[in-house]
Amino acid sequence: MGINTYQEPVAYLRSDSPVCRAQGFDAHSRIRVGLGDRAVIATLNIVDPPLLAPDRVGLSEAAWRALGGADGDPAQLSHPEPLESFSQVRGKVYGHSYSRSGLQMVIADITAGRYSELEMAAFVTACAGSALSLDETIALTEAMVDAGQRLHWPSAVVVDKHCVGGLPGNRTTPIVVAIAAAAGLTIPKTSSRAITSPSGTADTMAMLAPVDLELPRMRQVVEREGGCVVWGGAMGLSPADDLLIRVERPLDFDSEGQLAASIISKKLAAGSNHLLIDMPVGPTAKVRSAHAADTLARRLHGVGEALGLNVRVTRTDGSQPVGRGIGPALEAWDLLAVLQNQAGAPTDLRERALLLAGQLLEIGGKAGHGEGLPQARELLRNGSAWRKFEAICQAQGGLREPPRAAHTQEFTAGRDGRVQSIDNRRLARIAKLAGAPASPAAGIELQVHCGDRVERGQPLYRLHAQSPGELAYAAAYAGAHPETIQITED
Amino acid sequence: MGINTYQEPVAYLRSDSPVCRAQGFDAHSRIRVGLGDRAVIATLNIVDPPLLAPDRVGLSEAAWRALGGADGDPAQLSHPEPLESFSQVRGKVYGHSYSRSGLQMVIADITAGRYSELEMAAFVTACAGSALSLDETIALTEAMVDAGQRLHWPSAVVVDKHCVGGLPGNRTTPIVVAIAAAAGLTIPKTSSRAITSPSGTADTMAMLAPVDLELPRMRQVVEREGGCVVWGGAMGLSPADDLLIRVERPLDFDSEGQLAASIISKKLAAGSNHLLIDMPVGPTAKVRSAHAADTLARRLHGVGEALGLNVRVTRTDGSQPVGRGIGPALEAWDLLAVLQNQAGAPTDLRERALLLAGQLLEIGGKAGHGEGLPQARELLRNGSAWRKFEAICQAQGGLREPPRAAHTQEFTAGRDGRVQSIDNRRLARIAKLAGAPASPAAGIELQVHCGDRVERGQPLYRLHAQSPGELAYAAAYAGAHPETIQITED
Repeated sequence: MGINTYQEPVAYLRSDSPVCRAQGFDAHSRIRVGLGDRAVIATLNIVDPPLLAPDRVGLSEAAWRALGGADGDPAQLSHPEPLESFSQVRGKVYGHSYSRSGLQMVIADITAGRYSELEMAAFVTACAGSALSLDETIALTEAMVDAGQRLHWPSAVVVDKHCVGGLPGNRTTPIVVAIAAAAGLTIPKTSSRAITSPSGTADTMAMLAPVDLELPRMRQVVEREGGCVVWGGAMGLSPADDLLIRVERPLDFDSEGQLAASIISKKLAAGSNHLLIDMPVGPTAKVRSAHAADTLARRLHGVGEALGLNVRVTRTDGSQPVGRGIGPALEAWDLLAVLQNQAGAPTDLRERALLLAGQLLEIGGKAGHGEGLPQARELLRNGSAWRKFEAICQAQGGLREPPRAAHTQEFTAGRDGRVQSIDNRRLARIAKLAGAPASPAAGIELQVHCGDRVERGQPLYRLHAQSPGELAYAAAYAGAHPETIQITED
Repeated sequence: MGINTYQEPVAYLRSDSPVCRAQGFDAHSRIRVGLGDRAVIATLNIVDPPLLAPDRVGLSEAAWRALGGADGDPAQLSHPEPLESFSQVRGKVYGHSYSRSGLQMVIADITAGRYSELEMAAFVTACAGSALSLDETIALTEAMVDAGQRLHWPSAVVVDKHCVGGLPGNRTTPIVVAIAAAAGLTIPKTSSRAITSPSGTADTMAMLAPVDLELPRMRQVVEREGGCVVWGGAMGLSPADDLLIRVERPLDFDSEGQLAASIISKKLAAGSNHLLIDMPVGPTAKVRSAHAADTLARRLHGVGEALGLNVRVTRTDGSQPVGRGIGPALEAWDLLAVLQNQAGAPTDLRERALLLAGQLLEIGGKAGHGEGLPQARELLRNGSAWRKFEAICQAQGGLREPPRAAHTQEFTAGRDGRVQSIDNRRLARIAKLAGAPASPAAGIELQVHCGDRVERGQPLYRLHAQSPGELAYAAAYAGAHPETIQITED
């Protein structure tokens, strides 16, 4: 049809089409559309005659992608099988616990696209908060791993690194991967694209090298270089997680169980057995308090232990963005500065990456206790990390230069004083209004950090945009919210 | 756009439209569409150039109806206000109780169309099972009443009747209203159309008289005749309920609190102070056990008592359909047979209606204890009920004759024996596959009841359909499910 319904498969039919009349389909029915040996369960929308011939079915982009095929191919339309596994969700809602086999059924049906968005929203709601016990979380994690591909590597030790998120510019992953691989570790890193943030690690990495690798190609890169930084979405690793995210994000429920299952299932599916988790804690980060950090860390350790993944959680400062850039290209420039040891490279990004890389070297057995950080620092200083990063980029399809935005505008301090606080969420919003991540050069170049002394008129940050309209739109919002960067009397 | 998305408001924009580019709208964003003094919050779908000019916004039928206006009217598009009340739902999901003011905020936002389907699904899930306490249920009911119109009547006693549902053909309401109004009671009955069943009371009544009355017209009918049977959907009585139903039904959660709030809020909004509830209990009815009936009845009494509605619950046999017809027109013929005292009128329907009408006469103070049933029987026998029904139909816009289906097919007993059980849900499904309620003459004419002695080849039921295709489709399903009517050795 040429209609993008986000990720929801929708089928369009005329109410006077023979199939609607004969099969009793109605607006908002669920309908099974088969094409060759593929099939998708879609929500049905009824359209007026001008939009479609009576013997045709239209598909939304998500349904079209799922089915493949070409315009005019014959499709089979039928009522979908009843969704038996939803009784498991009902049971949970009525106060029972999920069984292991119940969660396997639910996740298998979600993975097969048999759940509507409403049903997924109900599942997510029933898992939210602390509704899932540790045992249920373990069972959910297993079910999510079992529903997709699972990689195996020749090396006995396979390490991974994950950031719980919520901190703009916290793009340590490519640096950590480069150092770990340079030290000889196996680190098959899959990352996500932005969903609600101005950039995901995969968006930033895509500024420097191709990231949309198929599984066999990704395997080649890791076998040759020890590491990679690729987009995980096309790999079929814990695929239910990708489907659930499309309803989790708009609802924005905190869910210890679901978050732990999401993180651990991806890493297990990627074949890792040692995982370092960067958990930024701060008032405008994802994890907002020490108590929340404790609870989540306990859950992550418990699930990892049960399923053979050695998990280490490192809490880091989540009070302000990391580095200077916020947005795919601007973050990529920061990465290059650190990896190439440029003068003026952002020290906060470098030191965080070194801290994490050092711990990973220790966890992976490449460094003794306390020796990881100096070893990581040396691998960065002597150019090994940069050469490894270049080699990984070449293996992924070639190193490239990030774009630069044509339009920028500077925002300055309204008074003399000291930078008191920086609102991560607000800055992320401004970067998105400027066009990030769809406009990859768009975003924010942050010029101060908390505690910095500033004078009235001194630059705080520079907005980058690819069009004057986007620049004006983001600038209007930024201008209306000077509290994004709070400056108090010294 | 000419796209019917069921009840979900959807707006369609091109990704290269100036407003998408400038405002950062993306597929699945929520967008506020203003037109004159009306506005609707819609889900955004992105369409390809051939479907829409770049300066145009397309609307789904639900969004178009909500906004009014004409093709080409200028619309204002903007980001919706953040949905503050959803933090209340989050709180409930995390284990807190709803406060009275919290539920008022949530229901006000749902009524204003500010909740997406996902957010409504989360709200419904968080209310399901026994998640709502009695106090929360009372607060929810109040909030639902407050969000809409509330009628007031000159009479001190205003009665109402409600059936918990799930029993095909259980169409006692028009008979009960006719008898109650003939006895001088005030009974402003609003009914619903079918959502998942082959007919709702409003669908059946629409076969005999117009039911789509606006509020002032409905008031006239009741002031003149004492009663009415109209569709409640256009009245603005507890409008949040109508919106929630569109997500409750597909999820099919049992929810004591929500069901009680739904029933009681509609009756309070209609201005009733005495309510008789018909609660059929049976293995394939909505209420399946005595325990479930107890729990629901207790909840209904508790909420009614707190809010000034005298509630009486009558449990009835829910083991099989009532009367002969299942489907709008076929049920209407049953009604006429009972009201006109035709020879061969279905006695089970008549006796159920008389039982309920008799209780209503006692509750409403028109009959002493034990005198209601004989009085109701006399009002039916002497033609008072039929004359009152005719008058109500005339006042609603004119009595009319139900249609008859052109195509029928009989299903017969496969063996000698006795009818052991009838599956309400399966029969309802067959009637819907035959086209009910959209094809009003379609449905099932049941020719046996439980306990009947049958011989091999004797008719069990006759399928009615308006087209050969629908008949064949329903017949194929019916033929594949002979267990719908179980016959066992005598």
